[in-house]
Amino acid sequence: MTQLTLHEDPVSGNCYKIRLVAAQLGIALERRAYDILKGETRTPAFLAGIDANGRIPVLQIGDRFLPESNAACLYLAHGSALVPDDRFDHADMMRWLFWEQYSHEPNVATLRFWRRYVGEGNLTPAQRALVPGKEQAGAAALALMDRHLAAHAWFAAGRPTVADLVLYAYTHVAAEGGFALPAYPAVTTWLARVAALPRHVTMDA
Amino acid sequence: MTQLTLHEDPVSGNCYKIRLVAAQLGIALERRAYDILKGETRTPAFLAGIDANGRIPVLQIGDRFLPESNAACLYLAHGSALVPDDRFDHADMMRWLFWEQYSHEPNVATLRFWRRYVGEGNLTPAQRALVPGKEQAGAAALALMDRHLAAHAWFAAGRPTVADLVLYAYTHVAAEGGFALPAYPAVTTWLARVAALPRHVTMDA
Repeated sequence: MTQLTLHEDPVSGNCYKIRLVAAQLGIALERRAYDILKGETRTPAFLAGIDANGRIPVLQIGDRFLPESNAACLYLAHGSALVPDDRFDHADMMRWLFWEQYSHEPNVATLRFWRRYVGEGNLTPAQRALVPGKEQAGAAALALMDRHLAAHAWFAAGRPTVADLVLYAYTHVAAEGGFALPAYPAVTTWLARVAALPRHVTMDA
Repeated sequence: MTQLTLHEDPVSGNCYKIRLVAAQLGIALERRAYDILKGETRTPAFLAGIDANGRIPVLQIGDRFLPESNAACLYLAHGSALVPDDRFDHADMMRWLFWEQYSHEPNVATLRFWRRYVGEGNLTPAQRALVPGKEQAGAAALALMDRHLAAHAWFAAGRPTVADLVLYAYTHVAAEGGFALPAYPAVTTWLARVAALPRHVTMDA
């Protein structure tokens, strides 16, 4: 396979997703770390060479660059057992990946970033105004996962897919954003199920 | 093919995307309309039978239900020329689909909904506080599209894919959200390119 380099911040769940998928598939990734809080993804070199948008993760595939964490996961998992072949199951897995980016990450991940890394006292007034809405929407996202997982062991296709790995990344650290995971018992059981997969890697690995 | 029913609000761009993809592929969709503003997706019958989350669009495939507009587009386009086979091109198309849901739709589509359908005077104080951030992020999204389209005729794989149809849906009505499309000349040219595709359908078709 072409040389794969993950441009990442190791504490970012969006970057961790990609390492989770790579680990499950036994794919080796070279890792290059940037500190978001120090602005290391906004330097002229990063903007010119890696991503004009100043965002991570970016998966570098040879001399080509792929932004968007879920797209990078799908690139790695292409043709593997982590992606269902069946037309409905495939779309159903994709449904959870889009939902993760629209309804879960902007709430659960953003509150974790603000509370654990930026610090609540350092938020701008505009950010502080968004906190109650994000608390409510994040809790609604966890509740929706809990209802689904009360009836299903995995998100799609009746087996572990990219959707489980992608949703694991920020859900397992939701407490750092102020969310009470014990309130979601089916989510808690599913988190343990994902962490028990052979080849699982922890966020700090 | 199994009977396909699109549960939709005809003025929603997220619903229009699915009709755009279906039209390109010559797939017949039965359409069932709901008025979001009248709360027709929050009735007990809708919540129990169509989507517990109270959202549209939902693509009904026989007796199964698929929420998330981009997942529905991918279901319809499965195995077609609108989805690249090549591993990188496929992931690159997916990158734009995730970006649309994370960086484009929450800004461009939400401002259009608020300004054209809810009415700026009817916004809650919390919604009003979000307007400047969404104006800025929506303009940044259109600028990023413009930079890409200045160098490429289509978003991925050098040909029309699901990414172009998905991004067309809300971009072509961005003016209704207060965005000045003439400021993005490459976007404007690309909009005309998409609208000129054989089998293109307009939003009110």
